[in-house]
Amino acid sequence: MARFTLYRTPPPIVLLTDFGFKDSYVGVMKGVIRKISRHADLIDLSHNIVAQDVAEAAFVLAASYRYFPSGAIFTCVVDPGVGTDRAVLCLEANEQLFLAPDNGLLSVIAEEAAEHTFRRVTEEEYYLKDGSTTFHGRDIFAPVAAHLAEGVEPEKLGPEVRNIERLQLPNPVRTADGSLRGEIIYIDQFGNLITNIREATVERTFTRPRNELEVRVKRRCASGLARAYAERPAGELLALIGSSGYLEVAVNKGSAARTLGCEKGDSVTVSVPDTN
Amino acid sequence: MARFTLYRTPPPIVLLTDFGFKDSYVGVMKGVIRKISRHADLIDLSHNIVAQDVAEAAFVLAASYRYFPSGAIFTCVVDPGVGTDRAVLCLEANEQLFLAPDNGLLSVIAEEAAEHTFRRVTEEEYYLKDGSTTFHGRDIFAPVAAHLAEGVEPEKLGPEVRNIERLQLPNPVRTADGSLRGEIIYIDQFGNLITNIREATVERTFTRPRNELEVRVKRRCASGLARAYAERPAGELLALIGSSGYLEVAVNKGSAARTLGCEKGDSVTVSVPDTN
Amino acid sequence: MARFTLYRTPPPIVLLTDFGFKDSYVGVMKGVIRKISRHADLIDLSHNIVAQDVAEAAFVLAASYRYFPSGAIFTCVVDPGVGTDRAVLCLEANEQLFLAPDNGLLSVIAEEAAEHTFRRVTEEEYYLKDGSTTFHGRDIFAPVAAHLAEGVEPEKLGPEVRNIERLQLPNPVRTADGSLRGEIIYIDQFGNLITNIREATVERTFTRPRNELEVRVKRRCASGLARAYAERPAGELLALIGSSGYLEVAVNKGSAARTLGCEKGDSVTVSVPDTN
Repeated sequence: MARFTLYRTPPPIVLLTDFGFKDSYVGVMKGVIRKISRHADLIDLSHNIVAQDVAEAAFVLAASYRYFPSGAIFTCVVDPGVGTDRAVLCLEANEQLFLAPDNGLLSVIAEEAAEHTFRRVTEEEYYLKDGSTTFHGRDIFAPVAAHLAEGVEPEKLGPEVRNIERLQLPNPVRTADGSLRGEIIYIDQFGNLITNIREATVERTFTRPRNELEVRVKRRCASGLARAYAERPAGELLALIGSSGYLEVAVNKGSAARTLGCEKGDSVTVSVPDTN
Repeated sequence: MARFTLYRTPPPIVLLTDFGFKDSYVGVMKGVIRKISRHADLIDLSHNIVAQDVAEAAFVLAASYRYFPSGAIFTCVVDPGVGTDRAVLCLEANEQLFLAPDNGLLSVIAEEAAEHTFRRVTEEEYYLKDGSTTFHGRDIFAPVAAHLAEGVEPEKLGPEVRNIERLQLPNPVRTADGSLRGEIIYIDQFGNLITNIREATVERTFTRPRNELEVRVKRRCASGLARAYAERPAGELLALIGSSGYLEVAVNKGSAARTLGCEKGDSVTVSVPDTN
Repeated sequence: MARFTLYRTPPPIVLLTDFGFKDSYVGVMKGVIRKISRHADLIDLSHNIVAQDVAEAAFVLAASYRYFPSGAIFTCVVDPGVGTDRAVLCLEANEQLFLAPDNGLLSVIAEEAAEHTFRRVTEEEYYLKDGSTTFHGRDIFAPVAAHLAEGVEPEKLGPEVRNIERLQLPNPVRTADGSLRGEIIYIDQFGNLITNIREATVERTFTRPRNELEVRVKRRCASGLARAYAERPAGELLALIGSSGYLEVAVNKGSAARTLGCEKGDSVTVSVPDTN
């Protein structure tokens, strides 16, 4: 009896690297994928992670993965240890797959998932033949992602592992005077300062309404949490819960990073104003 | 009787933003689109519009849309008013669809079309659930574009509107001495200075052949309109009708912007040389 | 009898240009391709070749093309002579197709191929109608690539030619004292210095094991060839055979280009250390 194989759409392969756009590294990864998976759907999440900044990659991934469909294969190559014996991991979580070096990049995703499985990718039959020791993005990550897109089961890639590198991300702390002190963990292209203080933490910490809170950074103060950048006059410092659910300090039609001279790691404090 | 649903190709979704490539904002928009439209064809027009520069986005779009197929869904997010009550518009024109904030970005396209319809996008069922007030690219534009790609009729998005924001783009003027004075409206990556003077305006204004005209900018002069950059020696200032149909000032194998120290808004004058 | 045309996947069109990402030039090329080839698979190899640097484009292409599938259509627009009578070439080699200006960009690919055929693209029916003299990427390369993707035979594009521009790439030389002297031909985004010295040349030139060789650049010396960046302490200069098979000078977790103040063209010497 005739049997028809219908056109099956491979899931998206979502690329996250620190390779930038000057070189052809990302393009070559796509060539390798295309050689194996004729129809894999290639989506760039970002290639401009600060070089070898695993924490930044982890933050960008954690803020983004929920917006992608089930079955997405995140392929994350921020890999200061390339060529050493650090493992390559395949994580199943949130009905998605994540490939990354075992350097902590995936630990936030695993923590947020109800269930998850880590595997160590060891089956070299899914690697590029004659690969290098310096470009695992091309030689391991790309071909493994492509084989997953073609339907290879994660079980085939290697054994389950439990002991993986965890990223120590800074957590906001409650200070003696009742304030909440966090820090800047990401500065976006507009100069918006994204902190590690989540909306839920603000809500849990303070009973006062949001528009009565104060947010301080570098001796400057924003009064109340705004709902949108344009709620404040151009050039004015403001704080709001940003689109990823984290407290963010911004300047309407300006750059908070430039205005305040801020860097990643600078303190940001939320408090109830002194009403004496 | 058996009926076969053939694989229907969704039209391209063409993205134009000022989000840049440092962050994952564009990647996340693509994730949202992919969740709704499994096969939507994603094309980046540009993501490096100067931040919040609606006029630049309008120029880039006006110079580009004709090169895309019928059915293309242009999704333009340069949006200084995000989070305010400015509307989101859906324009039907030139057998294409255009989504943008109601800030003038689309007015040039509408003016150039024989027929056009603007709608205000109000039907929240096509939005992302639990969206933010700061990232409408992800929460409104991306999902609405994806639903359009999946065949939702524009009529479903909201009511027709006529009163929209118009962009006041500068027009070239005829001066007392018979010259044509325009200005630089775009500087490209090569440092070419693109003016608001169209080829047709040059032809209408002057009877002299093009190679007898003079183009002046910043006290420098280019004699005659060239046909190609390489028609002039390396390093020499030249003027020509650029690939978008606008008068352009360039330096062969160099940057006119750097050579002349030009900025957007600087005057450019076309005249017949003084033959006394 | 009923005949079914199955969905045929067009081959990838791989784009390599110096157009950058500020402007919409690349996006417009994709629009033109999409108008002709509804399903062409568009892959960006790089758009950040140094402006008009044909040798850099030739190097990037030569280091990349083998990683793409058979049938790939490389579309390379680094074109200082746009608008002059330089030809547009279509090269068949390695079961792939390459479009580029006749300026030497493709000569390395042809030299590496067992068999190859160059054609001059002259059939204007495959061009965009009413094209410009300044943007052949949009007006010639994009539509010709799209027609190839749709199955137009290369023979249809124009006559075979043999006399093409050759790129004079610098070759490493053997010096009087037995050293191998090459030069930096590419500096990547990480500041790694890629030389024109191939792995095979190192092996042919020296009998000593790799870890006994010395690599000198700008009066600094790296001892032995490493296998991976992370084999050396952070900040230390190192040399290795990079992922493209060329000798490379790097600084682990740093930028060799910045550390040494290097530019393309600077000398790099491999030698056996003086054991007196």
